[in-house]
Amino acid sequence: MSFGQVEGIEPGQQFESRQKLYEAGIHRTLQAGIVGRQDHGAESVVLSGGYQDDEDYGDVIIYTGDGGQDTSRKQVADQEFTGKNLALMKNHSDGIPVRVVRGSGHQSEYSPTTGYRYDGVYDVESVWQEHRPHGFKVCRYRLVKHGGSFDELPEHASDDVDEAGPTVRRKTSVNRIVRNRDVADKVKAINNFRCQVCEGFVETAGGPYAEAAHIRPLGRPHDGLDVKSNILCLCPNHHKSFDMGGLFIEDDLTVRGTSLTLITQKAHPISIEHLRYHRTMWGQP
Amino acid sequence: MSFGQVEGIEPGQQFESRQKLYEAGIHRTLQAGIVGRQDHGAESVVLSGGYQDDEDYGDVIIYTGDGGQDTSRKQVADQEFTGKNLALMKNHSDGIPVRVVRGSGHQSEYSPTTGYRYDGVYDVESVWQEHRPHGFKVCRYRLVKHGGSFDELPEHASDDVDEAGPTVRRKTSVNRIVRNRDVADKVKAINNFRCQVCEGFVETAGGPYAEAAHIRPLGRPHDGLDVKSNILCLCPNHHKSFDMGGLFIEDDLTVRGTSLTLITQKAHPISIEHLRYHRTMWGQP
Repeated sequence: MSFGQVEGIEPGQQFESRQKLYEAGIHRTLQAGIVGRQDHGAESVVLSGGYQDDEDYGDVIIYTGDGGQDTSRKQVADQEFTGKNLALMKNHSDGIPVRVVRGSGHQSEYSPTTGYRYDGVYDVESVWQEHRPHGFKVCRYRLVKHGGSFDELPEHASDDVDEAGPTVRRKTSVNRIVRNRDVADKVKAINNFRCQVCEGFVETAGGPYAEAAHIRPLGRPHDGLDVKSNILCLCPNHHKSFDMGGLFIEDDLTVRGTSLTLITQKAHPISIEHLRYHRTMWGQP
Repeated sequence: MSFGQVEGIEPGQQFESRQKLYEAGIHRTLQAGIVGRQDHGAESVVLSGGYQDDEDYGDVIIYTGDGGQDTSRKQVADQEFTGKNLALMKNHSDGIPVRVVRGSGHQSEYSPTTGYRYDGVYDVESVWQEHRPHGFKVCRYRLVKHGGSFDELPEHASDDVDEAGPTVRRKTSVNRIVRNRDVADKVKAINNFRCQVCEGFVETAGGPYAEAAHIRPLGRPHDGLDVKSNILCLCPNHHKSFDMGGLFIEDDLTVRGTSLTLITQKAHPISIEHLRYHRTMWGQP
């Protein structure tokens, strides 16, 4: 596998064909949209119009996984996190960047008019698996341009207005959504840095450590709010599991598949609606 | 707190005094080297020659924490992870960037000849606390320029040569040390994605998840090797704890302060020397 930028090839470079992309080492297959191996990660993806669920916002792409289509490219089955889809999930969990190519067949204002264009390296910022209007589950990935200019949430978003709409964004040179650290810090303090699932915490030389996990993710397409009721205080293990579809919390706050109930504090109520959103975005009841 | 870049101020901009830095919002104090609060993180640091332990490699800085000096700036006591030092540790654990300013008093080829220069935003890539030749423990931070050009380890480093010296580096446009993913993947597979400390693993929609933790860290100043004997397969909780000075493994592979012994596999022996290095870098026996 060869991850990241390819020496001598700058983002923006045009290629007339898949064959040329292959020869340049940018996308080393002639057919598939994803080049990757499930135990190693994905090195590149091509957006070429093959999946109607793809959404392109330029520096942010909502990319659809591989499979479940018939020969006319109609979705007829669920996509699973196996093979290439698992590879691209590994980019997320292991922080591996992925090369992005746009083809002229891809319907978006960011597509080239002919051939293919290498658009640089993106981070796989989040991953999920949702039921789409066509009735099937697809694997979904939020790709964010590495080092580009991106949507950022305001530093001082309100921390207690739950009925507000998605937070207004501004363009900056920071390449991720900036969380409101005050809200996250508050949630961790209220919960005394204990995981709300297992009551555990991580010992460090600087004291106990915990993480703030957004239930309904921030940013497109989820547009979750950066407020206390949308944040859990979790240990890194349960955070990872929650973010990667291995942990679900029911409306009654029980933890699915366990005898545990989410530990809550009066000053930090959890939104049942956001928990529902989290289950739904993973195609769960 | 105000993290990250300051609107209207570009990296490289010169300031004639601490007062001017303050007014520009780059470093909002007139005396201290670190601006930060332990429960929120650090927003900026200044290198001005106050700590002899600082090391400056340009895009990589080994920064020394605050405190333990007498009025003549001689180190006379240990530094602890409290106050501003804990703030800067939080930048590491929470992924918060820190603004870096170099002053002319700082002895390095990267310092300005007069006044101060704002040098952009750095990531706090690692943190530790070591005994220095002056006899006291200091808090240490590896700062890596955000989005800059950096040391990278070759993609195909040998995975079984333990006697080799520090791996040769090459300059690239990637802003971190790139681990040899093959070696990490191998270690995880050998251990069946189970944590070598607790035997636990993280459940995800893509199967079990574990992390590869370097015992002696890669990169300056540790220059650990990217080989199996220097890597542990850990769950995220024990990885975080191991990396942040909360978890130590003895020469007999027992886990300090617990009744646990590191779980090992024949195909993946662990280097006692590297474990010793890890304890020493945290000032531990």
